[in-house]
Amino acid sequence: MSQKLAFIGFGVVGQGLAEILIKKKEDLQKRYDFDFEVVAISDMKLGSVYCPDGLDMEKIMDMVDEGVSLSKYPGCDTGWEPMKTIEETNADTIIEVTFTDMETGGPALDHVKAALKKGKNVVSTNKGPVAQKIKALQKTAEENDAYYKFEGTVLSGTPAINLALMTLAGCEIKKVKGIVNGTTNYILTKMEEGMGYEEALQKAQDLGYAEADPTGDVEGIDAQGKTLILANTLMNADLELEDIQRQGITRLTLDDIEEAKEEGYRWKLIAQAEKKDSRVEGKVSPEKIPSDHPLAGVMGPTNAITYTTDHLGEVTIIGPGAGKEETGYALLVDLLSIYG
Amino acid sequence: MSQKLAFIGFGVVGQGLAEILIKKKEDLQKRYDFDFEVVAISDMKLGSVYCPDGLDMEKIMDMVDEGVSLSKYPGCDTGWEPMKTIEETNADTIIEVTFTDMETGGPALDHVKAALKKGKNVVSTNKGPVAQKIKALQKTAEENDAYYKFEGTVLSGTPAINLALMTLAGCEIKKVKGIVNGTTNYILTKMEEGMGYEEALQKAQDLGYAEADPTGDVEGIDAQGKTLILANTLMNADLELEDIQRQGITRLTLDDIEEAKEEGYRWKLIAQAEKKDSRVEGKVSPEKIPSDHPLAGVMGPTNAITYTTDHLGEVTIIGPGAGKEETGYALLVDLLSIYG
Repeated sequence: MSQKLAFIGFGVVGQGLAEILIKKKEDLQKRYDFDFEVVAISDMKLGSVYCPDGLDMEKIMDMVDEGVSLSKYPGCDTGWEPMKTIEETNADTIIEVTFTDMETGGPALDHVKAALKKGKNVVSTNKGPVAQKIKALQKTAEENDAYYKFEGTVLSGTPAINLALMTLAGCEIKKVKGIVNGTTNYILTKMEEGMGYEEALQKAQDLGYAEADPTGDVEGIDAQGKTLILANTLMNADLELEDIQRQGITRLTLDDIEEAKEEGYRWKLIAQAEKKDSRVEGKVSPEKIPSDHPLAGVMGPTNAITYTTDHLGEVTIIGPGAGKEETGYALLVDLLSIYG
Repeated sequence: MSQKLAFIGFGVVGQGLAEILIKKKEDLQKRYDFDFEVVAISDMKLGSVYCPDGLDMEKIMDMVDEGVSLSKYPGCDTGWEPMKTIEETNADTIIEVTFTDMETGGPALDHVKAALKKGKNVVSTNKGPVAQKIKALQKTAEENDAYYKFEGTVLSGTPAINLALMTLAGCEIKKVKGIVNGTTNYILTKMEEGMGYEEALQKAQDLGYAEADPTGDVEGIDAQGKTLILANTLMNADLELEDIQRQGITRLTLDDIEEAKEEGYRWKLIAQAEKKDSRVEGKVSPEKIPSDHPLAGVMGPTNAITYTTDHLGEVTIIGPGAGKEETGYALLVDLLSIYG
């Protein structure tokens, strides 16, 4: 049966998925028996369109490239707001890729909640809803016989969450320790090459790794949210954002980095969650990692997580932490885990 | 419904799984709804026993520890050969952990084939059948509505195969490059510390990493089989063992290793399979890896694989490559992927 998909938000990540879906439509049907139509897109800037029998996605991408509003798509309903698109279209699955406030989860949180309540599956890369309300959302999903998948919230498409939930099933995750923010890891890599903090930050901004206001990255707020997600989804914790201690990289000096290097260590911004008796403690802070630990070799914008487990000891996954195609792919693997 | 399991072979790996099953029975039921009974064990040395309603596994482990033949287990049928156990017990799933000849696949191959033909699922850590006959076995499994799972054939319980098949679903694996033999990696690590080859090998033997006849490890035969498995199961290749070029580590000298180190490289025994046009080429050989590559930091008996994919670029997994509990766990995760 053909699955009906709706995009809520159609920015970089949504377009990343759309490009993969266009390119791989036949392959996905053949390899995974995954057949789909995109029936709706609702985006604040690009406009919105709903066509119950499916949109021509190549035409959609052409319109986006040419700067034509999606509301000009011929022969279909247009102008539907996100909530109406979620609740009233014939979509089975909502691809939620709008934006999110880490403190409140909104507006993505409302979208996810509304979709699950309607019994529609949700795949999303938005951290806010997972960080704020994962337990409640999982309950809503279960009650309404729907799936809520969010691989892309941590390490983009690099399988951080699915690795732990699927391929380490049956293991107890005792500790999670990782480099989950590419911007800061890039800055620290450049500083190790001798570049000053300000210059390294500038370079990260020039390359599009860091935003104009880099606070979220360099003060560890992004990593804090990801730590919360890992703790609450993989370690059965029930933490809130403020439970995760946080320190960024802004106090690290070139001297600190040089000194560590001479001692056989490397400074990394480490996100960590650890079971202690019945509690889980989480923190984000710069840490000196011995140069023979797998995390020490993770350079530039690359991310990595080491899981400490009961049966396997340490298992480490290393891969990209961001990117249009990489994060778009996270949505695809979530779709396949529902339908494949 | 309670699943009925039968062990064919009950050596180190089988006992590793049994210990986990005993310890986690309740947890597995609660977390994964996986309920089971072990109904039969057939082992060449330890004896055999069949009890349609289930064996007391703690009692079984006590008997093994005390050196009492399993054929002395009270109130049950005893003396059943592997083939009879596979074909005539009420087991739904066969845990195939006997031994295997990499050249012929036997006797494990016969066990796997017989079980699948009967429509029974198979979980196995035996490399031979996968290396020799994976395509035919997968076909038999499909025709008889059964599963054949073999995560433990490469990197023990570290999710090498499931990572690629499940969490990288939808990606094309263009290249696989890894350290898949712990013994040789341990020897190279020791040589980098200045130890001669013979001494390092002796130490590996003392620690139980290397066998009395180390040929299979040091000449790359073990790695060759694993390369074949990765190529044929993850890259849709149809290679045979002799298609994989092979060179071991015996020609590497301390001078080679020292020289590479000075140049910022590290010698590793690398297993590699790569798509070239419509073909897959595989080889095992010592290779100088740049010290900033994730594989360069993999030391001692630890294993690792880097997958080069279309959507994510390089994704690397690092973890244990062997061990009683680690390989026993591979069987558990396979069971959960069937029943969980």
